[in-house]
Amino acid sequence: MAGDVVDSNSTMVAEVLGRFGWRTHKRVTVGDEQSLLCKEIDVLCEDAEVLLINGGLGPTVDDLTATALAEVCQRNIAEHGAALAHLQVWCQQKGLPLNASNYKQALLPEGCDIIANSRGSAVGICLEHRGCLVLATPGVPSELRQMLEEEIIPLLQQRFSSDFIRTRRLGIFGLGESPIQELINRQFPDWPASIDLGFRASMPVLEVKLTARGDVEDAELAHWQQKLCDLLSDHVLGELPINLAGATLNALRDNNLHLCTAESCTGGLIASQLTQIPGASEHYDGGVVSYSNEVKQRVLGVSEASLQYHGAVSETVVREMALGALANCGSNLCVAVTGIAGPDGGSEDKPVGTVWIAWGSEHDLKTQLLQLPFERVAFQQWVAALALDLLRRQILGLPPIPRFMRRYRVAAPASF
Amino acid sequence: MAGDVVDSNSTMVAEVLGRFGWRTHKRVTVGDEQSLLCKEIDVLCEDAEVLLINGGLGPTVDDLTATALAEVCQRNIAEHGAALAHLQVWCQQKGLPLNASNYKQALLPEGCDIIANSRGSAVGICLEHRGCLVLATPGVPSELRQMLEEEIIPLLQQRFSSDFIRTRRLGIFGLGESPIQELINRQFPDWPASIDLGFRASMPVLEVKLTARGDVEDAELAHWQQKLCDLLSDHVLGELPINLAGATLNALRDNNLHLCTAESCTGGLIASQLTQIPGASEHYDGGVVSYSNEVKQRVLGVSEASLQYHGAVSETVVREMALGALANCGSNLCVAVTGIAGPDGGSEDKPVGTVWIAWGSEHDLKTQLLQLPFERVAFQQWVAALALDLLRRQILGLPPIPRFMRRYRVAAPASF
Repeated sequence: MAGDVVDSNSTMVAEVLGRFGWRTHKRVTVGDEQSLLCKEIDVLCEDAEVLLINGGLGPTVDDLTATALAEVCQRNIAEHGAALAHLQVWCQQKGLPLNASNYKQALLPEGCDIIANSRGSAVGICLEHRGCLVLATPGVPSELRQMLEEEIIPLLQQRFSSDFIRTRRLGIFGLGESPIQELINRQFPDWPASIDLGFRASMPVLEVKLTARGDVEDAELAHWQQKLCDLLSDHVLGELPINLAGATLNALRDNNLHLCTAESCTGGLIASQLTQIPGASEHYDGGVVSYSNEVKQRVLGVSEASLQYHGAVSETVVREMALGALANCGSNLCVAVTGIAGPDGGSEDKPVGTVWIAWGSEHDLKTQLLQLPFERVAFQQWVAALALDLLRRQILGLPPIPRFMRRYRVAAPASF
Repeated sequence: MAGDVVDSNSTMVAEVLGRFGWRTHKRVTVGDEQSLLCKEIDVLCEDAEVLLINGGLGPTVDDLTATALAEVCQRNIAEHGAALAHLQVWCQQKGLPLNASNYKQALLPEGCDIIANSRGSAVGICLEHRGCLVLATPGVPSELRQMLEEEIIPLLQQRFSSDFIRTRRLGIFGLGESPIQELINRQFPDWPASIDLGFRASMPVLEVKLTARGDVEDAELAHWQQKLCDLLSDHVLGELPINLAGATLNALRDNNLHLCTAESCTGGLIASQLTQIPGASEHYDGGVVSYSNEVKQRVLGVSEASLQYHGAVSETVVREMALGALANCGSNLCVAVTGIAGPDGGSEDKPVGTVWIAWGSEHDLKTQLLQLPFERVAFQQWVAALALDLLRRQILGLPPIPRFMRRYRVAAPASF
């Protein structure tokens, strides 16, 4: 509630439950105050079939879930045998003493069941209030995920049936929400009411989600998904979860190609995005973060004359960076970027946001100058996304630049 | 609600309002259904002085905020002159036609005020319901931030006074919540009740927050903050926002040193974390992402014999990587990492999670072997954090390894 933490746990809960056909109807966050917690728990239990509480089971003074639940359900707080046994084993495994802070996690509302936690010290709490099944879970994301998948889903499956909702989520790059909605309105006046369309800008990727309600057949959902993919064509990266790095690695794999990188303004972000994906090493060889001019010269072989005459942010230098990386890494393909991420370092003829991108092979190396109006980190992310998309498009023989990004081109060279 | 988007906007709202002394009391999320939205708006307005609604002002069919507000307030939806004028200017600037999807954003509850949006097509809505000031804002984060800071804060300052709450947030690395709570309980039995302590694990950094309520003097808050920093000593990175990259760059700057990197398993993550920070180029020169053995040999000069005899994940190779990067980049200091991020690539004697880290200078290069039990991306993040912290500790003359991480050491060499 103070604005210093982003809640990704509730998203995880909705995602995991959604896979099993259960819908999250409402999400409420209140501060670490017992009276607020108690009031909210009581009110939510009146309407809901299941209330999942996340967080507040830890060893510190701001962890209030057990005492709040006890107060709402008018039970005492007492040492719970199974919770204590779990704590003892956990402390032993970690070689830690069972101190007073940890012991607090064995004090639970009398008569509750526990939910096993194979990863952390805090067990979950399971009890009923006002006919609502209340499940309290720890706030550590990895513990929550494990508890959801291994304990809570089976427990819910025993008690509730589910009405499977099917969704398809597509990752789109280079087209905005409004143009997509217009295209759909124009091309598909007969879009079925039983398939909901949702949009979300997850910069730099746009997510388009199809949700089939009621008794839509699998084949019908697949049919409309295909029509949408055909309409948005080269802007479709694939089904989510996918990002530009994943789409690029897929294109490399399908064509048995190897990539290297030479990064200045993105400072390793392109390499990092690629290598976060399991198996990246099969088609990504490595690269150079040539942040200083010295590294550009000594590692990539960029000539001093080019740096002096054209400057570090220039077509000549981005070409030399790419060719240097290709020669060093033994790859077929390279992406290279050099630009001005800001907030400082801009000049009148090369303002903050200027970037040169080179992509391709030694004998077919393309370049593009862009001017991107984003602050430092967003600038780096857009440059990384664009560089990967330009390469993906070249590998797959698609139009050379995504539609949405054309407005940022500067002095497009003859290759466009 | 479907679990495919993490809500960081409500965090931003709380953070911005908090800076001006206003507290967020409750946060509610419901799905894109008009009846749910209307019910929730009506109920929240009964208790709140201000209701800030985020999202649902866009051009697509799932954008329902304007019609829901009109229904709750029993007003008609009508073309709003100022909103239409804004749209016309926006479309003109972008070179876009004012199509039907965009025009929808000029249809607002009759008689409402608008909130200017200098960055996007959708203006905000301002009206009163049940004595509550209702402010509807667009969901695009950059637009929301600009609107909050430039429009909404001044508007709230005109209407409400604020009770300034002061907070201090410290970034801690290498100590867990429970040990910190124990240390505080033992060392500070007289910790003042008027200064709240909050903890949050934002892996790999732990955040400890001090919140001064009521009439705590600035000097008293500073006094207890200093006592806490002394207690947690070398594990304190500094006041938030700070991460390992920022703390390392500060240490480099204060000692006028230059850093380079040689990354295998982290694949550019260390470089990327450093270069996300403005001004990084003054003390970070660049580095090599030596993902393949070929790049290790050709760019960093790792010997074929070392790779053959010791393997890519070995002390010999991590040393050669570091020395190669130092020679190439002309820096004083280097961090180098080579390990097995998984999910594949492990073996019996080098399982997934094995990592060698080297850090220091050409003539004072230290190494450490660790075994980290995290999945791929978390493994990369912990390795990056540890490598940077080991270097930070060496620069600042602190104990060589954070307390929490000692358990992950394997075969500690003599230097420990």
